[in-house]
Amino acid sequence: MTTVELPGLDVAERIDRLRALFGSGEAGEAPGAGIDAHFVTRLVNIRYLTGFTGSAALLLVGPDEVLFVTDGRYKDQSADQLAAAGVEARIEISGTEQKRIVHDAAQATGYGRVGLEAHGVTWSQQRGFATEWFPSAELVPTEGLIEGLRRVKDAGEVARIRAACGIADTAFANVAGRLADRPTELEFGLELEFEMRRLGASGMSFEPIVAAGPNGAKPHARPSDRRIERGELLVLDFGCIVDGYCSDMTRTVSVGDPGPEARRMYDVVLESQKAGRDAVRQGVEASAVDKACRDVIAEAGWADAFLHGTGHGVGLEIHEDPRVSATGRGTLAAGYVVTVEPGVYLTGIGGVRIEDTLVVTPDGSDILTASPKDLVL
Amino acid sequence: MTTVELPGLDVAERIDRLRALFGSGEAGEAPGAGIDAHFVTRLVNIRYLTGFTGSAALLLVGPDEVLFVTDGRYKDQSADQLAAAGVEARIEISGTEQKRIVHDAAQATGYGRVGLEAHGVTWSQQRGFATEWFPSAELVPTEGLIEGLRRVKDAGEVARIRAACGIADTAFANVAGRLADRPTELEFGLELEFEMRRLGASGMSFEPIVAAGPNGAKPHARPSDRRIERGELLVLDFGCIVDGYCSDMTRTVSVGDPGPEARRMYDVVLESQKAGRDAVRQGVEASAVDKACRDVIAEAGWADAFLHGTGHGVGLEIHEDPRVSATGRGTLAAGYVVTVEPGVYLTGIGGVRIEDTLVVTPDGSDILTASPKDLVL
Repeated sequence: MTTVELPGLDVAERIDRLRALFGSGEAGEAPGAGIDAHFVTRLVNIRYLTGFTGSAALLLVGPDEVLFVTDGRYKDQSADQLAAAGVEARIEISGTEQKRIVHDAAQATGYGRVGLEAHGVTWSQQRGFATEWFPSAELVPTEGLIEGLRRVKDAGEVARIRAACGIADTAFANVAGRLADRPTELEFGLELEFEMRRLGASGMSFEPIVAAGPNGAKPHARPSDRRIERGELLVLDFGCIVDGYCSDMTRTVSVGDPGPEARRMYDVVLESQKAGRDAVRQGVEASAVDKACRDVIAEAGWADAFLHGTGHGVGLEIHEDPRVSATGRGTLAAGYVVTVEPGVYLTGIGGVRIEDTLVVTPDGSDILTASPKDLVL
Repeated sequence: MTTVELPGLDVAERIDRLRALFGSGEAGEAPGAGIDAHFVTRLVNIRYLTGFTGSAALLLVGPDEVLFVTDGRYKDQSADQLAAAGVEARIEISGTEQKRIVHDAAQATGYGRVGLEAHGVTWSQQRGFATEWFPSAELVPTEGLIEGLRRVKDAGEVARIRAACGIADTAFANVAGRLADRPTELEFGLELEFEMRRLGASGMSFEPIVAAGPNGAKPHARPSDRRIERGELLVLDFGCIVDGYCSDMTRTVSVGDPGPEARRMYDVVLESQKAGRDAVRQGVEASAVDKACRDVIAEAGWADAFLHGTGHGVGLEIHEDPRVSATGRGTLAAGYVVTVEPGVYLTGIGGVRIEDTLVVTPDGSDILTASPKDLVL
């Protein structure tokens, strides 16, 4: 196992950053969600706001108070993790009385409008919350409020993503030699996964994509029993998780020379990916990064063969805000962690995709994925 | 990899079984959900109803027609899989026009009341469906309608669960010897997982539980860096997936004699688990199976140390209907696949849980998990 010393996370001020988005825009308040409190149910957002890593919790954030509810399994862990993070909250432990605890807290404080993550609760849950948990409040659907805060990563978060990228790099270097033995896609995907786990990853960011020959023409191909042959393009898209944070990287390789058309595809995508990386910096439109990649591929005559957006944010989830695509709105800020992953996909022939994960800086970016970009192994 | 010949699934008649639940109870109709059509968004339910195994699809089931919508990645696969399953549906392929396609179909057929899985869509999705996809219909929340159908497994489903149980059995037999080397819980969990994957499992039913010594007192402990020592109780709860279907089994073992108290715990749980298994048959109340287990443990003075329900259904999901617990309603029917997994958990000391997966028969049950139940390895 790789042991990496990870710096702390700046958790304590996150709840105040969320509260700053509550405002109604009236009476001098900043314009915002127009809520008095936010009921948070998405575990990944509770982790972000409190440092709690367990599998069950609820969080009610009011203007001055915070209620954290979990069950008996997490009595000690929740107290320890919230204290370590510097989060002040009333912690309630209950397996069966959670509804009553939240209900009573909301009644006592008299919240009129309570935010609820519309993308994070089921319709069934929302119906129960509205009628039984918050009968005196109006539940206000919020979309991406906390996810918006999560876009800018602090140093501790970047260190975790960097550690996950490092494990993926090392794992790839350790197992690449086995491609000479003509493994199946499934077999090689397992090798890659097992190696990342042996190196200390707690899990995969997603099931590795191992797509050889014609299979590479499908951007989201799943590993099959097909053997990886010499002279074929092989798309490898994989990442792992360290202390909750994801990595993401794609390399396209070939055991032996894949021929002139494949080499040309590769050179175009490599140039496109470099153009995208070079475009990344604080203040640039996300769509401009996409355009930088897309222009190179269009120039080569393959505009229609670049089948997806250029990239996405990476953090506690493998796909986060912002989207880096033609329709992605907004500009990149320092501390955003995004992928740049253009590709060309030719049906019946194969695909090339090259992807790095980068952290945006005032002047450009730092690349967190370090595996070499040589086509021929 | 293990290669098992799996019999076919009886997919074709499932949509009619769903339609039989539509009725309003008026004008001679069977009482049911009171809907004209059902819009299905849970992928696992779409798989169940159509045989489609891809990662994106929508299904609109009307009284006489079926609309299946997916994107370009699954053009061939959806046509092949629905045809192979004998499902007649209009298949539409679109990445960007799915809303319009579903909207137009609903408008054309004039559905007044459309079922929507309240537990399977987010509040955000429901709001969009109500206003933009089905503006002329009333969306009716359904809970567990299709999941209810899924309780009775056909022969092909049982064969898949049996194959997954068989892989788990073989993997356990293959790696148990390594416990003598004092691996950590994490290391042994990885060995177990890798072995199941090598034997052909497509994935884990859930992250294996490997809980040694005092860690075993937590029913849902996560594997840690703690070494597994001689003479300790070790709880192993694991399962894998074959062609979409899950297995689930728990064994408690010790390398060397764990001492008299641990042996007594084990004997009581073993007797409890046998009592539970013996209680399983068509027509018995689920709660009676729970009581059969619980009575043995209570008799031994550990009523408060059995911290969870006795079991649950297993199939396309690891936790399905029915619940086998004190509050579980309804009776078991032939073809249900359920776990029986009583346990005793003593804080600071450790835990014992023993679990099999069984298929209910008219006269009793068939046990699908076959690993021996010897405490001392």
